[in-house]
Amino acid sequence: MTLVVAVVGGGQLARMMTPAATALGIHLRVLVEGPATSAARVVVDAPVGAPRSAADVLDLVLGDAERPRADVLTFEHEHIPAEVLAAVEAAGVPVRPGPDALRHAQDKLVMREHLTALGVPCPAWAPIPDAAALDAFLAAHGGPDGQVVVKTARGGYDGKGVRVVRESSEVAEWFAAAAVGGPALLAEEKVPFVRELAVLLARRPSGEVAVWPVVETVQADGVCSEVVAPAPGLDAHVERIALDAARRIADGLDVTGVLAVEMFEVAGTGGGPGSVVVNELAMRPHNSGHWTIDGAVTSQFEQHLRAVLDLPLGDPSPRAAWTVMSNVLGSSLDRLTDALHAVVGADAGARVHLYGKDIRPGRKLGHVTVCGDDLADVRARARAAAATLRGEPAHG
Amino acid sequence: MTLVVAVVGGGQLARMMTPAATALGIHLRVLVEGPATSAARVVVDAPVGAPRSAADVLDLVLGDAERPRADVLTFEHEHIPAEVLAAVEAAGVPVRPGPDALRHAQDKLVMREHLTALGVPCPAWAPIPDAAALDAFLAAHGGPDGQVVVKTARGGYDGKGVRVVRESSEVAEWFAAAAVGGPALLAEEKVPFVRELAVLLARRPSGEVAVWPVVETVQADGVCSEVVAPAPGLDAHVERIALDAARRIADGLDVTGVLAVEMFEVAGTGGGPGSVVVNELAMRPHNSGHWTIDGAVTSQFEQHLRAVLDLPLGDPSPRAAWTVMSNVLGSSLDRLTDALHAVVGADAGARVHLYGKDIRPGRKLGHVTVCGDDLADVRARARAAAATLRGEPAHG
Repeated sequence: MTLVVAVVGGGQLARMMTPAATALGIHLRVLVEGPATSAARVVVDAPVGAPRSAADVLDLVLGDAERPRADVLTFEHEHIPAEVLAAVEAAGVPVRPGPDALRHAQDKLVMREHLTALGVPCPAWAPIPDAAALDAFLAAHGGPDGQVVVKTARGGYDGKGVRVVRESSEVAEWFAAAAVGGPALLAEEKVPFVRELAVLLARRPSGEVAVWPVVETVQADGVCSEVVAPAPGLDAHVERIALDAARRIADGLDVTGVLAVEMFEVAGTGGGPGSVVVNELAMRPHNSGHWTIDGAVTSQFEQHLRAVLDLPLGDPSPRAAWTVMSNVLGSSLDRLTDALHAVVGADAGARVHLYGKDIRPGRKLGHVTVCGDDLADVRARARAAAATLRGEPAHG
Repeated sequence: MTLVVAVVGGGQLARMMTPAATALGIHLRVLVEGPATSAARVVVDAPVGAPRSAADVLDLVLGDAERPRADVLTFEHEHIPAEVLAAVEAAGVPVRPGPDALRHAQDKLVMREHLTALGVPCPAWAPIPDAAALDAFLAAHGGPDGQVVVKTARGGYDGKGVRVVRESSEVAEWFAAAAVGGPALLAEEKVPFVRELAVLLARRPSGEVAVWPVVETVQADGVCSEVVAPAPGLDAHVERIALDAARRIADGLDVTGVLAVEMFEVAGTGGGPGSVVVNELAMRPHNSGHWTIDGAVTSQFEQHLRAVLDLPLGDPSPRAAWTVMSNVLGSSLDRLTDALHAVVGADAGARVHLYGKDIRPGRKLGHVTVCGDDLADVRARARAAAATLRGEPAHG
């Protein structure tokens, strides 16, 4: 039998691991939420189960007489309880990223504490046990518009669990939930950023690290809508700080697999050089790295598989001067494949990636990548293709 | 539901269609020879059946209450009887390439007759109904070494069904087989070629054609061992003849899908320009096009799916100055994945493609692709990686 990688989560991130797994001859076994999930449609060995069930996850990694034991367990999301991970490790199957690393992607309070200890630039932040603490934080860090960002420490993604507030009453129900066992809260200053950046890297258990170029990410309503690789016009000083922060996090937290570090680029004061502060972490392939499928020698999905298997990492070099990835968030079409003719007919170089998901408003349904020498052209083409997949009429 | 492409054949060619199908949101349904074939390991909807069974192929394309009807039927090999194709067309499912085109990839006599009529450069050839005909062909076209090439019109692949002979007795059993309903025979002059070339293109039902650069192919014992894209030092005059021949075949035979035209490059006489003669055709993704996965904007596998669905074709431009694909033919390893660490550790840019097949001597088990600016370096790296996967010790 061949190498077996077990993956928790049946979304598009697990789906996009399949080409790399197929090429490397790695057998993927994916725990899916149901038979019609994005990954379940294209993965042969895709048992249905719950990430919170130790029995389901143990069954995933241990296999049986017909299905070989997994060489490693990894994830496409962070929502796996620590006790489930502990049970897998106790059964002798490596968990990568390990539970100690993963805690930092699961709990923003743990992450902020550790990053601060590591000297990684963070926004001003504080744990918020009650309304009085938030009032104090608002008073200290409210900034010119009197706003701060409140986050649930756990359970958030794609803008969920994040709220920009002016008064503690705006998160009253989060306080109520926290009081009865819901996620704890933290507050962060609302960073006056120039733009958003992301650093994506992969790290093996041996410590080898491979870093893709720093990218610019564009968010719409808290959801990634576009990624430009590399980040245009990035100051070399800022780039160094960004890369150093990501590297320090990877090593400091003993991350294995792909790590995505989302950052705010901030202007320098008094004409001095700018800098970054770290916003969020993810320890898995990430939307900010989808451009690597078409735009880099080694994609984030292949690199994640290599990293969690402790195989030497691939070359993360870009394959074009510019790569732009545009997300398809929602669509007015009945099915996205109906737009394929128009998309690929308008642009022979557009690389289309559909996730096989049912269409819902704002949902991540796919993305388009375009590579080329002229950034304005590449960006316009990626946006136009994504717009056509959203069902919007062709525009100039 | 989404677009559905039905494919006959469960080998590595169907396997390598899966990344493109996944990206485009196309559902693949593949008729496989058994559950452990190369494609069956990675295709969710992979019924077991026989390409020669009209019932099995009709079941593949028509589906049932649970499985939607296919939008088109295509193939990863040519071994499907005409009556099976006719039954599929009668059921209203398009067959691409169509049976009339596919005949030319199934029967070398039909191919030679039609190509000769189209004015495509061919070697001297003749149908060989009996030993006397072969004796006459040997006398006329035996060349300096007195040899000619005898082929079975049907059923050959990878050097099988092809024999270089000096006397008609050397194919005595083929005559005997032909006399009792076995494949007819033809003879061709043994072309004194400089090297072998291949032209790969895709053509839609609408007539749109996209052509990849002419490549050089290297054979070992009748099996492709290496492909260099583009063909180094190709004379512009020869290139034009090669591209024109392939284009004329595609249009003249009304090919839909990917067409591979294998050619011999021949020297000019008296210092004049060289030329090509056509050796073989394949109407499906082909070993000479595996380099396109990593080396071209659009791979042959994606292009084949687009062409048979009559979607606009993708950009076939190369993504690097040089791409070399080296086949892994047989291996002394117990499993190829055991060599992954050594291969990717030695070369972070080597693109490894394993087919998930049981190891047998000489069998096509995978390939490695390397892209770069320096041909000698790229070729050496591709060969070294393939050698490691064959289980050979590292060499300088």
